[in-house]
Amino acid sequence: MKFFQKEIRLQSFSRGFHLITSEVINAIPEINQIKLGQLQVFIKHTSASLTINENADPTVRTDFESHINVLIPENQSYYKHTFEGPDDMPAHIKASLLGTSVQIPITNGKLNLGIWQGIYLCEHRNRAQGRLLVLTAFGN
Amino acid sequence: MKFFQKEIRLQSFSRGFHLITSEVINAIPEINQIKLGQLQVFIKHTSASLTINENADPTVRTDFESHINVLIPENQSYYKHTFEGPDDMPAHIKASLLGTSVQIPITNGKLNLGIWQGIYLCEHRNRAQGRLLVLTAFGN
Amino acid sequence: MKFFQKEIRLQSFSRGFHLITSEVINAIPEINQIKLGQLQVFIKHTSASLTINENADPTVRTDFESHINVLIPENQSYYKHTFEGPDDMPAHIKASLLGTSVQIPITNGKLNLGIWQGIYLCEHRNRAQGRLLVLTAFGN
Repeated sequence: MKFFQKEIRLQSFSRGFHLITSEVINAIPEINQIKLGQLQVFIKHTSASLTINENADPTVRTDFESHINVLIPENQSYYKHTFEGPDDMPAHIKASLLGTSVQIPITNGKLNLGIWQGIYLCEHRNRAQGRLLVLTAFGN
Repeated sequence: MKFFQKEIRLQSFSRGFHLITSEVINAIPEINQIKLGQLQVFIKHTSASLTINENADPTVRTDFESHINVLIPENQSYYKHTFEGPDDMPAHIKASLLGTSVQIPITNGKLNLGIWQGIYLCEHRNRAQGRLLVLTAFGN
Repeated sequence: MKFFQKEIRLQSFSRGFHLITSEVINAIPEINQIKLGQLQVFIKHTSASLTINENADPTVRTDFESHINVLIPENQSYYKHTFEGPDDMPAHIKASLLGTSVQIPITNGKLNLGIWQGIYLCEHRNRAQGRLLVLTAFGN
């Protein structure tokens, strides 16, 4: 049983949805030593999130940002947690709805994603430093 | 440490929420060789998703479809990714909110689900071919 | 390869979002025997859920409850699954959007959470008994 773990800091991303599949794979090349297993990508923050979605047309990612802002708008009268700015509380809610980690099968040394699937970093704050990820790969 | 992995194609499902617990269990009977572990079900698509919810009353699944269409409607003026039809971009957003995988504890050779829990295939497109799943079971 | 599993019942919580990080860690001290690994917390119910979010200001948790009730309101005319009360069907939908499990990296015998991250029990029913959790820790 093999277990590999890396902690990396991404570059800063603007608010929105961003493909990071290559950054993740390049940071943990030990995946190629695993015949059957899993890779987890975990984000150590509560106002940014991770998801898997289409890796091709960039307007998919623009539309994600447009619609998530409709679902979880800023400046709702009932928000009490407002001292970090109007984008903060919506960022927390978006992060929990999209999720803090993705876990992906590894098959024959590679991530076993569908051909249209990529990993998204979802940045929900207007300004944020590069986000910390923990990458954990394991298997036989 | 045991690791088993299968790739299966489900039958085609209509748009909506469908119980697939039996299909999953039948496809990976090696679960019964695992005393303590986990099973992951991963979907290799970006317009269908997986979740765990009530396995009994079918109106729960109907109500899921009704409400998710209210949360993520078609034909929003701000959608740019429209060339695959009005159901496509909403399908991507639904898929990321519900999730691409479920991971379930295995205890004494069986999935350790609550008595009311089942695995749902959530089909978000009006028409789709059978979806590909990767099943990964591991443990001692 | 080490594998530990515990099943615990939480105290009853009121409807809303509640920090349970300490309860989880105290229930599975074997985490400290794992150098590299993962902990999964899985909830065996379909009307309560688990997520990771801010562990500090309690108004974050109040605002989660306020906004999730706007996203998934009670008494929608199209709900068919109504015989368990008006809070039941919304509870199912909330549970699937937030998720049935969280999976967290273990590093050097401790959960590798960000400094602001904690585990939330999200209780979506007006009244519920203590919820069952399955805790699964594994690694080298």
